[in-house]
Amino acid sequence: MRRVLVTGASGFIGAPAVAALRERGFEVVTVGRREADLLDPAARAAVVRRAAASHLLHLAWYAEPGRYWTSPENARWVGATADLVSEFAAAGGRRAVLAGTCAEYDWTGGDEPLSEAGTPLAPATLYGVCKDATRRVTAALGAQLGVEVAWGRIFFLYGPREHPDRLAASVARALVAGEPARTSEGRQVRDFLHVDDVAGAFAALVDADGVSGAVNIGAGKGIAVRDLAVALARTAGREDLLELGALPTRPGEPASLVADVTRLRDEVGFHPGPTLDMDDLRTTLAWWRAAGAR
Amino acid sequence: MRRVLVTGASGFIGAPAVAALRERGFEVVTVGRREADLLDPAARAAVVRRAAASHLLHLAWYAEPGRYWTSPENARWVGATADLVSEFAAAGGRRAVLAGTCAEYDWTGGDEPLSEAGTPLAPATLYGVCKDATRRVTAALGAQLGVEVAWGRIFFLYGPREHPDRLAASVARALVAGEPARTSEGRQVRDFLHVDDVAGAFAALVDADGVSGAVNIGAGKGIAVRDLAVALARTAGREDLLELGALPTRPGEPASLVADVTRLRDEVGFHPGPTLDMDDLRTTLAWWRAAGAR
Repeated sequence: MRRVLVTGASGFIGAPAVAALRERGFEVVTVGRREADLLDPAARAAVVRRAAASHLLHLAWYAEPGRYWTSPENARWVGATADLVSEFAAAGGRRAVLAGTCAEYDWTGGDEPLSEAGTPLAPATLYGVCKDATRRVTAALGAQLGVEVAWGRIFFLYGPREHPDRLAASVARALVAGEPARTSEGRQVRDFLHVDDVAGAFAALVDADGVSGAVNIGAGKGIAVRDLAVALARTAGREDLLELGALPTRPGEPASLVADVTRLRDEVGFHPGPTLDMDDLRTTLAWWRAAGAR
Repeated sequence: MRRVLVTGASGFIGAPAVAALRERGFEVVTVGRREADLLDPAARAAVVRRAAASHLLHLAWYAEPGRYWTSPENARWVGATADLVSEFAAAGGRRAVLAGTCAEYDWTGGDEPLSEAGTPLAPATLYGVCKDATRRVTAALGAQLGVEVAWGRIFFLYGPREHPDRLAASVARALVAGEPARTSEGRQVRDFLHVDDVAGAFAALVDADGVSGAVNIGAGKGIAVRDLAVALARTAGREDLLELGALPTRPGEPASLVADVTRLRDEVGFHPGPTLDMDDLRTTLAWWRAAGAR
């Protein structure tokens, strides 16, 4: 029996992850934020016991744009996640995959790709600190309880269902509405993946028995943030709406954040599509067009 | 107003810490394990709100000898402690001191004293990992919420009220009962403090406005574990009962674990008494004698 409990299943990554897991032959039990409050111990325990899953994909976390970097809510998810893993073990669970972040890494080290074994960890935000602490606790807890724990470190992403205030979403929304799409200069280089690839990588990681610890989830190459905006504008045929440099660049933004994806490629066996795939750009714009009409 | 909420107030360190804080002029609000379950979110919030304290000394944690190194209960205290700090901030708290452990350090580095700034952190147990993670989360949380957070790293200790199964207590109990006191060879060197000194150091740290982050709580010098047993036996006048080497030495025990106490001495201004003070040894034995009669 391969049954996977997916938390955050109605979210940005969760929805396509559920589809990717089903494609891999998993029976999927979902819990989204409307179905249960995972910060409530009793609700959490009930969800895990009822699922009786062999696998866990835990994507739920506090994710309000602009606020999630600094919100004390992050700290509540540390304990909730550790407890989730304990409950999962008690319910007979075997393998758990949890969502981490590239914000666990030291971002001051220069332009080298960030690697699981080589790059120091030095989260500079409460969000990063809490994710980092959760990884430490759940890894030790898993070892104690006989549950394999893998940790997918998410880099940057875009696609349908993104929170409307995030970068690609805000650009896409403006473009399909025929309004000016204002961005920063966007010369910083980031490792962007389409959300379906991020979800596919998570599904592959769930499926990768024996692979534990941190695994970067990225494309393995970077693009300038402006290039994503330009690609969306071109695909929409509305380059005229793009106002690069209209917004200030946040101070302290590192020049480059790119994932070393050796583990994802060689151990998990996952190969993401091209970063700015034309179909991906089109479906993203189409989704926001449809969302505007809803 | 200087009012301090002390958790674990009925425990080994808590009881003398309450006395030491009162001596320093703090109004003390206590919560012991019989009064409230700090793992229960509602009970926890109620305790903190009712205390309306300016300071927090959080000593409560899972501490069952033999089991605390590996128990999944440790993970529950990570979230509970983070939440306690959030609640404390929300209730107007200003300064929190939390109990850490020398088990956060890498113990494989040789015989140099362990120092807050110089020794790598590499906890090898679930207990150490959970304490380490709690420190990381509460430090970031404190910075976000405007609460000063200090972290007292406890080394080794002995004295009245110790759990009866721990080293010094088990030796003292045997001695006062006139029974053989069986120990390992005990050649490993440890930094032992009498519990009143540990409590005094914590009270001083609570009182040390502006001192934040990790602070070792130790004597700054080590003794062989056997020397503590010998000192207790001599003080009791029952060296005949001591059977050094009757128990096996645990594999993997590091040869030396001694605190660098520069921060405790210079920044906190705390100077512990001698490690094997005759009065301390006598009162420890007397307490166990009285405990046996209770």
